[in-house]
Amino acid sequence: MNRHMVNRPRLEWSDGKLRYLDQSRLPHESVLIETDDHRVVARSIRTLGIRGAPAIGVAAAYAVVLAARACGAGPEQARHCRDAITHLSETRPTAVNLFVSLERMREQLEAGASAGDADLSRRLEAIAVAIHREDQDACARIAALGAPLIPPGSSVLTHCHTGALATGGGGTALNVILEAFRRGSVRTVYVDETRPLLQGARLTAWELVQEGVDTVLITDSTAGHLLKLGRVDSVWVGADRIAANGDVANKIGTYTLAVLAARHNVPMYVAAPVSTVDLLTVSGDGITLEERGSDEVTSFGGVQVAPDGVRAYVPAFDVTPHTLVTALVTDAGVVRPPFGETLRDLIGQRPRAEVNR
Amino acid sequence: MNRHMVNRPRLEWSDGKLRYLDQSRLPHESVLIETDDHRVVARSIRTLGIRGAPAIGVAAAYAVVLAARACGAGPEQARHCRDAITHLSETRPTAVNLFVSLERMREQLEAGASAGDADLSRRLEAIAVAIHREDQDACARIAALGAPLIPPGSSVLTHCHTGALATGGGGTALNVILEAFRRGSVRTVYVDETRPLLQGARLTAWELVQEGVDTVLITDSTAGHLLKLGRVDSVWVGADRIAANGDVANKIGTYTLAVLAARHNVPMYVAAPVSTVDLLTVSGDGITLEERGSDEVTSFGGVQVAPDGVRAYVPAFDVTPHTLVTALVTDAGVVRPPFGETLRDLIGQRPRAEVNR
Repeated sequence: MNRHMVNRPRLEWSDGKLRYLDQSRLPHESVLIETDDHRVVARSIRTLGIRGAPAIGVAAAYAVVLAARACGAGPEQARHCRDAITHLSETRPTAVNLFVSLERMREQLEAGASAGDADLSRRLEAIAVAIHREDQDACARIAALGAPLIPPGSSVLTHCHTGALATGGGGTALNVILEAFRRGSVRTVYVDETRPLLQGARLTAWELVQEGVDTVLITDSTAGHLLKLGRVDSVWVGADRIAANGDVANKIGTYTLAVLAARHNVPMYVAAPVSTVDLLTVSGDGITLEERGSDEVTSFGGVQVAPDGVRAYVPAFDVTPHTLVTALVTDAGVVRPPFGETLRDLIGQRPRAEVNR
Repeated sequence: MNRHMVNRPRLEWSDGKLRYLDQSRLPHESVLIETDDHRVVARSIRTLGIRGAPAIGVAAAYAVVLAARACGAGPEQARHCRDAITHLSETRPTAVNLFVSLERMREQLEAGASAGDADLSRRLEAIAVAIHREDQDACARIAALGAPLIPPGSSVLTHCHTGALATGGGGTALNVILEAFRRGSVRTVYVDETRPLLQGARLTAWELVQEGVDTVLITDSTAGHLLKLGRVDSVWVGADRIAANGDVANKIGTYTLAVLAARHNVPMYVAAPVSTVDLLTVSGDGITLEERGSDEVTSFGGVQVAPDGVRAYVPAFDVTPHTLVTALVTDAGVVRPPFGETLRDLIGQRPRAEVNR
């Protein structure tokens, strides 16, 4: 086991191989996967071995490079890459980062294919590395911009997992919290366990404990009680897609937290890279919400917990209306309502290449 | 296995034996316990083999009868019964029904002991059977009064477990839902799995499937999304204690449901016997909320799910302010705001013996 990977659990690319921790097996097992097979990466995305919208985008880009490296230069190589892109695009439907990354790889692929480029795999690799580096930079900027929103002595609540494991860099919402912790502002972090797959208990708590943060795990249904007791000063979540009007698609349960935060006049912050903003989606109504299989709820760790004959409804995401969001913390800046205007301004003033990454 | 018991899983008393399903092992195993030993009953209460405040009260009463039947008439028998009452009273601290039942049994015991009653066990049995019958009657009245509040074509949402397993009769909130189902009014019942101990997944879903109800299990954090989609017409929960002003202490997560129901203008109904109303408690602020051990959240089925070094905050209950409750459905009638007045009137007009059961 590579201890460096365990302590700083980020995606790593070197020697033509992608390395990552299998998130589906944490914290029981720290399994480091090292692969040069794009199908292994696709399977990891589908089975949540790699999860978190930015991490999915980065891993998918590297997977296309792996596909290119598996063939000699020529039409066969380009066809193999196109197949890989199609296969990767079918793994998960909601996170916009996956599609943005794959589109950038496809553009580079077609440019190379038409040019009869013998060095396609190296040029694809350069794009994937750029996507990765941009994500790392975005994470760092989000942390720097978000941390001042957490005043000294704050206790915060977070949902699901938005840390280093979920991105190509240091994370989004959890990275803000950790940056504020390093600045001495965070007293306690309350972590929703986040059913059904317990990303909060398994991943967020795991990252926080590694950093020495005072961490208190709660069931998702305890958040309302905590807010009512006045123990939470701000709520921090990530986003899988942000619509043009500021509606936020994120892990199921985010909407409930937003309703509770609003009732108790506690700020509800959403931290995500600008690449998560999808101006082509007018509102949250236009976002496809992935549904997962019943067994994620009816079973636990392979053991059936519900009786035979019961089906479960398992949406992976919900949509939080922009009216319940206090601010969006992006790498390009912190924006507040009216999001329809502030998001347009934020993205309109950026160079196109940066906007579309 | 006694199929009748499995299909109608209520406490049964016959031939000097108490029969009940071990709730802690459902739904994996349907274990029918049949015993004439009061210590077996006490152990089942302590280990949640018998749970639900009304069920605990009924079972404890029968356990005292079992103690009496284990001895011949005389001073030895009375002493044995007193020891059993002490032992039973130490099983669980919260459920008021346990202490009310044991007090009624003790009164009968001392009356018989002073009279040198040779027929003590039969007289104790008559009291236990009366307690059981009163609970059955209360459950039936709650169902009859509550069912008309569910109009035809309704889909309802419930939390935790309030069915036959939790009472000596047909249950409280779940009994209302089942009565409405039998009247043809219920389309679908959505069941919160109810972390951490999954009483919704294990017990409520189990009872509903037995009755042939269209049952959909959800994680607790999915309820807000469902309400937002307009799929829920009313929310039904039970109560562990109701204060004089109508504040309701119930399973953790109930407060969150009430906030969500109010936001979506969906009625929030609380169904419980009048014996749950505690006029001596002015408001929810006066209710002590039991906290349980971290391991209920950090472990699942004996398997650790959170990393070492993480503690959990595990309140078993929360308090829903009366302003979020649409109506209280009791065996004595359905009351609506202002609960301070309507509850006082409801209880004031009842015979004392009935109120104090």
